[in-house]
Amino acid sequence: MTVELRNPVAAPAGHSKPAIADCDIHPCLANARDIMPYLSERWRRHMDSFGLLPRHGYQSGPAYPKGQPDAARRDAWPPGGRPGSDLAFMQAQHLDPNNVALGVLNVIAPAAGAAQNLDFSAAMARALNEWQVAEWTSKDSRLKASVVVPYEDAAAAAAEIAHWAGHPDFVQVLLLSRTAEPLGQRRYWPIYAAAQEAGLPVGVHAFGYGGYPVTGGGWPSFYIEEMVGHAQCCQALLTSMVIEGVFERFPRLRMVLIEAGFAWLPSLAWRLDKHWARLREETPHLTRAPSAYIRDHVWMTTQPMEEPEKRRHLGDVIGWIGADRLLFATDYPHWDFDDPEWSLPVRLEDAARRGLFLDNARALYGVG
Amino acid sequence: MTVELRNPVAAPAGHSKPAIADCDIHPCLANARDIMPYLSERWRRHMDSFGLLPRHGYQSGPAYPKGQPDAARRDAWPPGGRPGSDLAFMQAQHLDPNNVALGVLNVIAPAAGAAQNLDFSAAMARALNEWQVAEWTSKDSRLKASVVVPYEDAAAAAAEIAHWAGHPDFVQVLLLSRTAEPLGQRRYWPIYAAAQEAGLPVGVHAFGYGGYPVTGGGWPSFYIEEMVGHAQCCQALLTSMVIEGVFERFPRLRMVLIEAGFAWLPSLAWRLDKHWARLREETPHLTRAPSAYIRDHVWMTTQPMEEPEKRRHLGDVIGWIGADRLLFATDYPHWDFDDPEWSLPVRLEDAARRGLFLDNARALYGVG
Repeated sequence: MTVELRNPVAAPAGHSKPAIADCDIHPCLANARDIMPYLSERWRRHMDSFGLLPRHGYQSGPAYPKGQPDAARRDAWPPGGRPGSDLAFMQAQHLDPNNVALGVLNVIAPAAGAAQNLDFSAAMARALNEWQVAEWTSKDSRLKASVVVPYEDAAAAAAEIAHWAGHPDFVQVLLLSRTAEPLGQRRYWPIYAAAQEAGLPVGVHAFGYGGYPVTGGGWPSFYIEEMVGHAQCCQALLTSMVIEGVFERFPRLRMVLIEAGFAWLPSLAWRLDKHWARLREETPHLTRAPSAYIRDHVWMTTQPMEEPEKRRHLGDVIGWIGADRLLFATDYPHWDFDDPEWSLPVRLEDAARRGLFLDNARALYGVG
Repeated sequence: MTVELRNPVAAPAGHSKPAIADCDIHPCLANARDIMPYLSERWRRHMDSFGLLPRHGYQSGPAYPKGQPDAARRDAWPPGGRPGSDLAFMQAQHLDPNNVALGVLNVIAPAAGAAQNLDFSAAMARALNEWQVAEWTSKDSRLKASVVVPYEDAAAAAAEIAHWAGHPDFVQVLLLSRTAEPLGQRRYWPIYAAAQEAGLPVGVHAFGYGGYPVTGGGWPSFYIEEMVGHAQCCQALLTSMVIEGVFERFPRLRMVLIEAGFAWLPSLAWRLDKHWARLREETPHLTRAPSAYIRDHVWMTTQPMEEPEKRRHLGDVIGWIGADRLLFATDYPHWDFDDPEWSLPVRLEDAARRGLFLDNARALYGVG
């Protein structure tokens, strides 16, 4: 699938490090009330009177380090603000020294995407998108934004995508992985139709909350179980996307799995193909093996990268997925930041390496 | 870990095929009422008056092929009975022609293991265990049984294990994978204590129902999603067992993951180790990396085996897990039966192959 390069960014200046794309950067509001100027009078009053009502049963969820809100690196606090809330600080700490030529912003806002009040959910999504342009992408052309959408109301989400379609600062639609129903189901299809129409990939970032535990067997006790569990959740949602026929119905749809690792993809595809070979009568809407849809439609960000004892095992995994389908990401400013200098424990051919660190993202997101 | 070989089985007669162990055979009642003679008068009356009340919200669950109850092979129906209900038929169709020297019986009975009425759950477990001895293991010395336990009542489950400890016909304790809470949690520890004390491995077979969807994002639409989802569910429960410290607390506990594939294990272990390296302050009760517990304590049955395009990829996976940790299984009489002649798509050294097909199971289960 080729994509026209439509959104020029500043060429990196002379730099001691090679230019990279960072496909998972998390900006945030310095203060929750900073979103107020982007809300209408109605929703400002609503927020003051009722606040956000996140999806039933969701409180704050497990987070680490708890003493560092927003799961942030301890060194990522700008003077007087929250990590990810200060552009100048982000430029000085990350974008400039790491020579980030393209930074994709992902605002993680489960309350906006999945608030119980669907109209407020949509209003918050619009506000966060306007805030991203006003405070981030219009001030640094290296940064591109993902469209926050009220994903539990697919019609409203589709309208939000259509609103921003063609805007040069938006390169992706952003969903979260834990939703009310598996993401392949028809209630979410208007989102995929709108994304395909707008030529925007759909990124699914780990996290969120749909009302269910992250495991198929109840609520875990430890943060590390949630962290590791995101990979299983993403296996399930990718299964749902493939099996429900999303890629059959939307043949130009491109999907990015963000912050769920990637080494699990080959074994999932093997298992899907094996069962599909025997069970295909259940899903006559599929015309190809599950792995074929995955190979054509799915990209993955690298962080947090799996680190096997034998590097060649990671090389084999990357070989199966295709180095052209991997997108480097740091997760800045979160605590589990992957440093671009140290985080690829396997040797790749030069072109594959350039692809993983920069060219794949430029091609996928249409950013020259 | 070495185990004394204590339960002799009949030596296989001269046979054109090499002897194998089949570590996942499913016997079943020809008729649900056939369990009545093994229940006390009290529970016979209860069953007639109230029936079994399976875990809240569980009906029959998805099954395939629906026209063939019990997910059975179309050719596995004995005259006048249900698949898996007739020993002579099983001998003639499977045990004899495939030269099964050791067959491990796993009675899949979520209603017994997790009935809402805990006392009835315990009574059904006892009845099914007595039925296994009376109708199966006492009639064919190749067959060994797994102790069915009321696993949502760990004290009762531990008592059931203690009741059968030392009985030569029982070689394993059987749990299912979808439980009320993740299987590593303390409510289940009495089961592990009793199993360790009895010297019995704990097998966890895919399936069951704890009240939650198999995915972290809601209820899937298709049977194939449930099938593939079992692998994610088992990733989560193994994570729970490791992270909660079960293997630290029960250092002689051996665990068998049954019917969930195995190719996902390396990437899960890589991910666990990576996160643990940074998060170990959360779990000071762990003294080793997660992969170290997995390597020492976990065995896996082979069926349904993943089938990558490149066989060497499966070889790499088996290399990571250790061929000595894999146990051949057919899932007889279910529809997705793996034929011992055709189901290992990779070449192994002779000793490793003999191990996978027979010797590993003999050593693990202490069957000579």
